[in-house]
Amino acid sequence: MFESAEIGHKVSKADYKKAVPGLRSALLEAQVDLYEGRKIPVVVLISGQDGAGKGETINLLYEWMDARFLTTLAFAPPTDEERERPPMWRYWRALPPKGQIGIFAGSWYSDPIREHIEGRLSLKELDARADQINRFEAMLVNEGALVLKFWFHLTQDAQKKRLKDLASDPRTAWRVTPWNWDRLKTYEQLQTTAGHLLRMTNTPGAPWVVVEGSNDHYRALTVGTVLRDALRARLASTARPTPPVAPMVRVDTDGRNVLSTMDLGLSLTDKHYANELAHWQGRLAELARDPRFKGRALVCAFEGADAAGKGGAIRRIYGALDARQYRTVPVAAPTDEERAQPYLWRFWRHLPRHGHVTLFDRTWYGRVLVERIEGFCTEADWMRAYTEINDFEHEMAEAGIILVKFWLQISQEEQLRRFQDREKVAFKRFKITDEDWRNRDKWDAYQQAVCDMVERTSTGTAPWTLVESNDKRYARIKILRTLCERLDTELARGHKHWASGEPAPGARAPTGKSAKPAKPEKSQGKADRKK
Amino acid sequence: MFESAEIGHKVSKADYKKAVPGLRSALLEAQVDLYEGRKIPVVVLISGQDGAGKGETINLLYEWMDARFLTTLAFAPPTDEERERPPMWRYWRALPPKGQIGIFAGSWYSDPIREHIEGRLSLKELDARADQINRFEAMLVNEGALVLKFWFHLTQDAQKKRLKDLASDPRTAWRVTPWNWDRLKTYEQLQTTAGHLLRMTNTPGAPWVVVEGSNDHYRALTVGTVLRDALRARLASTARPTPPVAPMVRVDTDGRNVLSTMDLGLSLTDKHYANELAHWQGRLAELARDPRFKGRALVCAFEGADAAGKGGAIRRIYGALDARQYRTVPVAAPTDEERAQPYLWRFWRHLPRHGHVTLFDRTWYGRVLVERIEGFCTEADWMRAYTEINDFEHEMAEAGIILVKFWLQISQEEQLRRFQDREKVAFKRFKITDEDWRNRDKWDAYQQAVCDMVERTSTGTAPWTLVESNDKRYARIKILRTLCERLDTELARGHKHWASGEPAPGARAPTGKSAKPAKPEKSQGKADRKK
Repeated sequence: MFESAEIGHKVSKADYKKAVPGLRSALLEAQVDLYEGRKIPVVVLISGQDGAGKGETINLLYEWMDARFLTTLAFAPPTDEERERPPMWRYWRALPPKGQIGIFAGSWYSDPIREHIEGRLSLKELDARADQINRFEAMLVNEGALVLKFWFHLTQDAQKKRLKDLASDPRTAWRVTPWNWDRLKTYEQLQTTAGHLLRMTNTPGAPWVVVEGSNDHYRALTVGTVLRDALRARLASTARPTPPVAPMVRVDTDGRNVLSTMDLGLSLTDKHYANELAHWQGRLAELARDPRFKGRALVCAFEGADAAGKGGAIRRIYGALDARQYRTVPVAAPTDEERAQPYLWRFWRHLPRHGHVTLFDRTWYGRVLVERIEGFCTEADWMRAYTEINDFEHEMAEAGIILVKFWLQISQEEQLRRFQDREKVAFKRFKITDEDWRNRDKWDAYQQAVCDMVERTSTGTAPWTLVESNDKRYARIKILRTLCERLDTELARGHKHWASGEPAPGARAPTGKSAKPAKPEKSQGKADRKK
Repeated sequence: MFESAEIGHKVSKADYKKAVPGLRSALLEAQVDLYEGRKIPVVVLISGQDGAGKGETINLLYEWMDARFLTTLAFAPPTDEERERPPMWRYWRALPPKGQIGIFAGSWYSDPIREHIEGRLSLKELDARADQINRFEAMLVNEGALVLKFWFHLTQDAQKKRLKDLASDPRTAWRVTPWNWDRLKTYEQLQTTAGHLLRMTNTPGAPWVVVEGSNDHYRALTVGTVLRDALRARLASTARPTPPVAPMVRVDTDGRNVLSTMDLGLSLTDKHYANELAHWQGRLAELARDPRFKGRALVCAFEGADAAGKGGAIRRIYGALDARQYRTVPVAAPTDEERAQPYLWRFWRHLPRHGHVTLFDRTWYGRVLVERIEGFCTEADWMRAYTEINDFEHEMAEAGIILVKFWLQISQEEQLRRFQDREKVAFKRFKITDEDWRNRDKWDAYQQAVCDMVERTSTGTAPWTLVESNDKRYARIKILRTLCERLDTELARGHKHWASGEPAPGARAPTGKSAKPAKPEKSQGKADRKK
């Protein structure tokens, strides 16, 4: 990986001086086109060995380019707000918006490399991280970003010399810390680990550029030229990437699917409902205050046809929670800050802190439902969304976030009845719009999209619960019960925190109560049938 | 303050049931008008005694209203990201955007009350906080927000009874903690402190509504009705508030002002410049890595006419800093998330963490410069901005943020020369637009606005430095020198952290170096004159 960067590359001062004005001009022009024209976000990773010129290069880019559209993203040890979210959360929130260049001094590569060198991450785990990184970067590229990754390399002798030079100059001595000298000792390990990770993550969409760091002029010209060429190429290309995705295979040629086989006749009597509501709200109240929940978080995702009863079901959850603990996120049109980011960014930003609950009233599944059906995005976009969503939810699970997803299913007749009811009640009238009537015409397309969604995104850690919702009481109880059972199971299972490696607070001191075994859902439903 | 809330208010269940549907309908209608029509942000504070029904009321509002446009803001002990900013930062970032209702469970009142009861805040300091709060709330109101503050009151006996009732019901027992019982003991102190603070902050724009909390129906109907009426009144009113402001009095009737008396002939020779640059960049590099800076932060505000050399000066600061330490914020058109917030919100969000530097390339002074002159805001808006800006900067200073503000002054002739130069150089051409030429026509208006700005916002903790910038070298050195001298002075002075009350890290262990005495600026300038 590093062979070409050990041959003593060099550029003379004269050549450098000759090249810079043209290069600078080209970079500035590309920048103008980026933020005024094509609105492309650019992610530049500046990584590599200590003393190889990372800081100097960033400063130089600031000198050459328009600093108003550059941001440097640096990462100190995670703050407590960051530690309470999945590890990638801090990188998501640092992503540059469209038209801007984000220079990452430190990145999602730093931790895996360090942890592997320190022996806290096995080679197998490192490979798993590489895979995760590749998927993340592929998402960035598919979302239209230009991703450029620089690795600054030095031979061991060159690194020693650089550090000595820096240390002996009073103007730069502050930059050399005992930690840097220690790193010299682990030179070989860094080469091996970084080399392995770089090879694993050297993808066509997000390639690595290894730059020899010993000669300032060579290093600067190389980075500038590579950046210029990449910007130009990206600005000139109008082709959207079309990632390969698994085709949609219809399995319901017999007309039966997971929705059509639901028993929408399931219902509860008033009395049964009142008892069950008190029971499950009480149980949820206990679980949300369980000491083991203090190191976890809960995300509830609600999807369903218009008037399926999402709002009412969500309100029954509020009833059991402390008002300071939950937050509802209604998913409406994205703001312009959200539109300037990858699709999932606006959901990442709302992930709850430890001990908190976020209730999404409609979710990231909009991409594969309304956006797919209304043609708000390309087929390639919604086709790749399944994988991206699975990755997103996997990262939640890894971070100990308990995710519960509900699809509220009603029949076409029941929806019509509810629409008509809403139009009669003054304070519900605003809830029904022309768009709702239009959506009804696309009923079949929606049903098909829901089936595809369930099939492709129901995973072990994030299964879909399909809720028979023609009877609101039945639906609300099923939702509360499912929620309680998932919380019970998850809290009993426990979770190690990704940063500290320690069990989440409370998990070491279980309350002694054994988790209630999950009742088979169908049987209880059947028993409650009125009809 | 609480007398009317101790008379045993009561509403029967029948009356309550009769009133709710109409009330709910009215609240929902007002909400639709809020988020689809008038786009007014609403701040509702729910505060008061434990057991007085705060949580129940919030849950009820969620039941009655459209939860998609409600947010509950609750405040746990500050996170480390919050502790490293001014105390009000966490409230600023929680403000509801236009069209939304933010329900504050806990607010900027919580800390002053607790700290005063615990004896950590004197009555005088409490009054100072009240004053600060009044100014903050006045700002919200002037920015168009509706601010409603509820205080739920109980007599001591009623509170005891409520807590006992809650504790004896298994469904609510979890809500009563030993901490709540302790609060009973401090009942009198809470009454006294809260009563005092409530009276001090009961303003026409943001009044307190004291609600007796013992009867659920009465409490719910009162909050609902007050909220409905306030929403209706606010929605019906089209009058913009016109806060009284001090008039602008011209003092330059002799044609002399702080700008016209600047000596724009000040300059440096190339050699002198090179030496000074190395010296002050070196000094800045030391100061930015001083252990005492670890608990502080630096904000540099750059204002100046077009082509005055802001970018070049900022780049000379980068040269001395670690790329991971600073961030440039170019002030361009606000995003829609920013437009949905009070004017200063988009600057608050960029305040640096400890040990970090934010360089604002144009600033919050846009309000009293370009927005004033171009008529982008009303006269009342920019007139009140001086006070709001002073408050903002005062809060930075209180939190240990070192703020250094530069106005870069050039002559009209020099500006013309630079515009013409820019048009000749390819990669600088994009920097000059038709707008720049148009702004030149308003030169005198800008000069007057700058004089007003300097006069009204140059304070002891945040003085303006006027920089003679016809000679770029002179300007850059003066900026670097001023920055170093301010940092020197501020680090020597030290700072107590607002949350811990402890000196900022490093401040207890001074480096032993004595701060370099600030050289009188004019004399050095004069000595350097070439002309």
